[in-house]
Amino acid sequence: MHLKLAFIGFGVVGQGLIEILLEKKNLLEKKYNFKYTVVAISDFLKGSVYDKNGLDLEKIMDLIKQGKKLDEYPTGIKNMDSISTIKDTNADTIIEVTYTDVKTGEPALTHIKTAFDCNKNVISTNKGPVIKESLNLIKIAKNKNLYYGFEGVVLSGTPAINLFRHTLAGTVIKDFRGILNGTTNYILTRMEEGMSYKDALKKAQQLGYAEADPTGDVEGLDALGKVVILTNIVLGKNISWEDVKRKGITEITKKDIEIARIEGKRWKLIGSAEVKENGNIDAKVWPEKLSINDPLAGISEATNALTFNTDELGKVTIIGPGAGKRETGFSLLIDLLELNKKFCN
Amino acid sequence: MHLKLAFIGFGVVGQGLIEILLEKKNLLEKKYNFKYTVVAISDFLKGSVYDKNGLDLEKIMDLIKQGKKLDEYPTGIKNMDSISTIKDTNADTIIEVTYTDVKTGEPALTHIKTAFDCNKNVISTNKGPVIKESLNLIKIAKNKNLYYGFEGVVLSGTPAINLFRHTLAGTVIKDFRGILNGTTNYILTRMEEGMSYKDALKKAQQLGYAEADPTGDVEGLDALGKVVILTNIVLGKNISWEDVKRKGITEITKKDIEIARIEGKRWKLIGSAEVKENGNIDAKVWPEKLSINDPLAGISEATNALTFNTDELGKVTIIGPGAGKRETGFSLLIDLLELNKKFCN
Repeated sequence: MHLKLAFIGFGVVGQGLIEILLEKKNLLEKKYNFKYTVVAISDFLKGSVYDKNGLDLEKIMDLIKQGKKLDEYPTGIKNMDSISTIKDTNADTIIEVTYTDVKTGEPALTHIKTAFDCNKNVISTNKGPVIKESLNLIKIAKNKNLYYGFEGVVLSGTPAINLFRHTLAGTVIKDFRGILNGTTNYILTRMEEGMSYKDALKKAQQLGYAEADPTGDVEGLDALGKVVILTNIVLGKNISWEDVKRKGITEITKKDIEIARIEGKRWKLIGSAEVKENGNIDAKVWPEKLSINDPLAGISEATNALTFNTDELGKVTIIGPGAGKRETGFSLLIDLLELNKKFCN
Repeated sequence: MHLKLAFIGFGVVGQGLIEILLEKKNLLEKKYNFKYTVVAISDFLKGSVYDKNGLDLEKIMDLIKQGKKLDEYPTGIKNMDSISTIKDTNADTIIEVTYTDVKTGEPALTHIKTAFDCNKNVISTNKGPVIKESLNLIKIAKNKNLYYGFEGVVLSGTPAINLFRHTLAGTVIKDFRGILNGTTNYILTRMEEGMSYKDALKKAQQLGYAEADPTGDVEGLDALGKVVILTNIVLGKNISWEDVKRKGITEITKKDIEIARIEGKRWKLIGSAEVKENGNIDAKVWPEKLSINDPLAGISEATNALTFNTDELGKVTIIGPGAGKRETGFSLLIDLLELNKKFCN
């Protein structure tokens, strides 16, 4: 099968994927028998273009680099909005990379459901729909024998989701614990070197790790969204935003860090969930003081990590980057290759 | 597709898989659409049995638990040796779990080649053939569109091999570093608590982690075999046993451990390989003193860990068990489900 892709949204993540696809064309064709054409791109700000025979991706990237609109692409149909790009093109696979709204999941949720209605596969890094109704979306995709990939929603391209969905298939996960937010881990690492919380936050902002308003990271909201996702996907439950207890890192002082050091321990912001004996879920984002024998204690800088507690293997931990243009773009490739394997062998 | 399996060898690892298959029958059928029949088992010591319509696995496990031979199974054909079990049964997939000879790869190498000659898939935890000629075996399987799975040869059921082969597909690995032997890591952990090397080794032997002759573990030979495997599979090179530099842990003293502790470091036996600028490989098993910021430094007890340095994601580390009946049996299931996906969707 030769996949026909349409991008809904075309920010840094989508562009990251295109860069990888262009650079690795030969490797992907030769080693993974991966053949594709991008037939459409529709972005709220950058405009849209559709050519059923395929777009020239180098030309597309040139336009983007020059800050031009996709409407300036020399051929093809212009001015198709996201819904018509999903419905009225010959794409068989929709790459949904619009902006994230964790409360409503929109507009991504509508994009994904529309794609499934049209019997098209979906690959997305958008956390909103996965937080909002992952189990329902997975069910719809399964019933229609479609692929719904969302590797990038936790740990960016570090393959935590597919590790669980494919490589650890056959295990039952009893609980999980992870460092799910890189910004807070970066701040804690700098504080261990003697920086104050305020200075460490400033440094994280300078490096682009933290937003001007850092609340989403430092108060644990970003990690909370990922706990909701993992609880539903990995533990097979159906919790929402308000079911997770939360405390951020803003109250951790230099003195707390120093005391931990003397005890041979390290403070980390841990996102976790476990199924209690009565079947209830205990899900939280909370700062914890870890012994250095804990695999999560060794995670420094902006790195993320996730430990699955499995029935067959005990604890299995994966560690890797949790953000980045190229890294998140790569998460889309992981899903594309998995989709390719599903339908093309 | 309904897989027809034949076991060549039936020690603890094969039995571990059968236990999992029996316990998880419903889950595997329902969630992964995995359907199979075991049609034959042939073991050098335990005898053999073949029934083209399938064996009753509970009856098989009862015989084994009673220390009886497979020849006492009530029906089926008996006395088929390994080669005729591969050639002359209706199995489509051979589970090769005989004993390991790391120097010649035999008899497993002949079993695997015979299976490929007969157009049968192979799943194996046997390190011998993978050390000896992995690239050739992978090539034969690929050319014949057969599956050759060997997840269990490093880190047992912790999915390091399939993480690379499937979940990290599309990346290029530049180098790797790992704690590839649980016994030595267990000994080093005990020494950090104040035990002498000699006492720690004795404790490892009592727990069954180390053999009566511990040379294979403590001199780094077991880890060396895994470095050969990973160098060839992951870095795509073709090295053999003698290309790897090696030093074990026998010269590490309590004083070395104590000095490291004061420096905030930990001694670990590291297996690693990297491609040099001139294209040569620098592969070794060597004790290293790691900073506690190194993800491998936090690995205690008999746990294994492996860090891949990738072009797209930087460092990705996986941590989990490296041995065990059930854990290694589970590695066979990982491969079976991957095979099932390849041929059954």
